Amino acid sequence: MTEPVLLVLDDDPLPRLDRLAGRARVVHADEKSLVEKLPTADVLLVWDFLSDAVRHAWPGGGRRPRWVHTPSAGVDRLLPELAASPETLVTNARGVFDQPIAEYVAGLVLAMAKDFRGSWELQRQRLWKHRETKRVGGSRAVVVGSGPIGRTIGRTLKALGVTVDLVGRTERADDPDFGRVHGNSALGSLLVGADWVVCVAPLTEGTRGLFDAGAFAQMKPGAHFINVGRGQHVVEDDLVEALRAGRIAGAALDVFAEEPLAADSGLWDVPGLLISPHMSGDTIGWRDDLAEQFLDNFDRWEAGEPLLNVVDKDLGYVPST
Amino acid sequence: MTEPVLLVLDDDPLPRLDRLAGRARVVHADEKSLVEKLPTADVLLVWDFLSDAVRHAWPGGGRRPRWVHTPSAGVDRLLPELAASPETLVTNARGVFDQPIAEYVAGLVLAMAKDFRGSWELQRQRLWKHRETKRVGGSRAVVVGSGPIGRTIGRTLKALGVTVDLVGRTERADDPDFGRVHGNSALGSLLVGADWVVCVAPLTEGTRGLFDAGAFAQMKPGAHFINVGRGQHVVEDDLVEALRAGRIAGAALDVFAEEPLAADSGLWDVPGLLISPHMSGDTIGWRDDLAEQFLDNFDRWEAGEPLLNVVDKDLGYVPST
Repeated sequence: MTEPVLLVLDDDPLPRLDRLAGRARVVHADEKSLVEKLPTADVLLVWDFLSDAVRHAWPGGGRRPRWVHTPSAGVDRLLPELAASPETLVTNARGVFDQPIAEYVAGLVLAMAKDFRGSWELQRQRLWKHRETKRVGGSRAVVVGSGPIGRTIGRTLKALGVTVDLVGRTERADDPDFGRVHGNSALGSLLVGADWVVCVAPLTEGTRGLFDAGAFAQMKPGAHFINVGRGQHVVEDDLVEALRAGRIAGAALDVFAEEPLAADSGLWDVPGLLISPHMSGDTIGWRDDLAEQFLDNFDRWEAGEPLLNVVDKDLGYVPST
Repeated sequence: MTEPVLLVLDDDPLPRLDRLAGRARVVHADEKSLVEKLPTADVLLVWDFLSDAVRHAWPGGGRRPRWVHTPSAGVDRLLPELAASPETLVTNARGVFDQPIAEYVAGLVLAMAKDFRGSWELQRQRLWKHRETKRVGGSRAVVVGSGPIGRTIGRTLKALGVTVDLVGRTERADDPDFGRVHGNSALGSLLVGADWVVCVAPLTEGTRGLFDAGAFAQMKPGAHFINVGRGQHVVEDDLVEALRAGRIAGAALDVFAEEPLAADSGLWDVPGLLISPHMSGDTIGWRDDLAEQFLDNFDRWEAGEPLLNVVDKDLGYVPST
């Protein structure tokens, strides 16, 4: 029996590979060699999930792998090119990032309410300066993105006493956790009353540039905006303008239109803007968790069972059941 | 009918005073004039609750007020002197600070787990540097202090998936929220397994200096310590030594042995130490909430009803019912 070829686009080494001993021939590719190696692969693991190389290599000639797995929640770096191959299944890392990102967002909400950055900046200056801070309990949040990460963020904020409105592509009147899920068309009116606006939507043509001058203009002067989705959800110049003009009180970005953020970017020192380097979901051991999740799905693939977390390539995410 | 005299030791003006119009004669005192005015007062409101003036003025001759209210949770600035006057009731601000301080502590836990200070320091340097962070869910916390603030902290951390052990003066086997409350004697063994150690005990002779070199030596190298109780709970030199030697991973202090912390204090730049200026409970509107709480109790006093939140001056706090 011939072993299937698992092509791995990697930067860091893939842990737990011993589970595949005798079951797959593992071939490594970098961004340059991917084009040439792609036709040899049965399965492609996009271990370097921040790369755009797969999308660029995909339209070439020859056989394409029947299964592509990306160990990320977003699949925007594979689309729309892979949608042109209906015989190729795409799976993602649904679930792994839910709790870490929810904790990260809850931490940002509390840190902004309590002005931790202000305190630590005063500490640097050896200044004792008491301030009054905001209560989080009793405030309102709008979470844009109703997949598992958005839902976990919503539940975590609810546990802190925040009233949460969830916005998704598909409106639902009978949501077990949130009462309802609002459709995108309700976003404008929800932004008006929100203390916290959290973006964790999949990046699709419907959500690209969703947070622009018009959206920021609808928010309250006391509102804070948090993006843990994709940089392209935000018109960064509009956000900078809204912060500089005091139209909103603050923002935290973990993702950017171009990553890594260049040292000479104007974003680094915008007042009221907190920056972190695309790490909200990446807790100690995450690489192991991601490898395990892929290998569990490999077991299913090998056994001819249906794969878990299959992306709808037209929607751009794994639809909720 | 003679109006009772309400003596107010104030720094900031007391809000909501109109509620007392025609019901009390309000006399203001500062730290200097307190000694002289104290014998004229029926009720003393220690609006400037960070002052030690009441304790110092109390043992003087003449009549003492029959009721002293401090708009703080801790009453350590009134004791032991007021305990010598059994006919004087002391009440405190039990309840007002519970949720704000619980939010503050949850925010610190998340901020330390996710290394927000590290990210914002890198931001200042315009450096993009991805790091893996800690999960809060599944970690363990020990909360020292089983009054309403400690309980609210414990419930908030539990909502984030943290396993919480509560330590108090009185051991209980049947606590509705936490299963049990541990006695102080269990502290040593609980510290060994804790990721987060939170101090929010009342300051009494039993808790003064509780967190010393011995306590820090029992904690894990990955443990973080948070003090929102009183500065005197901590032997500050021992904490500095534990941080510098890497015996614990980090700490956050909102309270200090001497406040305000002097500009030349060695604490400001200890690695891994987060400093804030005694503000964990002080959310916007807190002064109004504190005034309302006092005035509600004044209604009861005037009507001859039992006061709420009466401190046991021997224990040093309001006993739980």
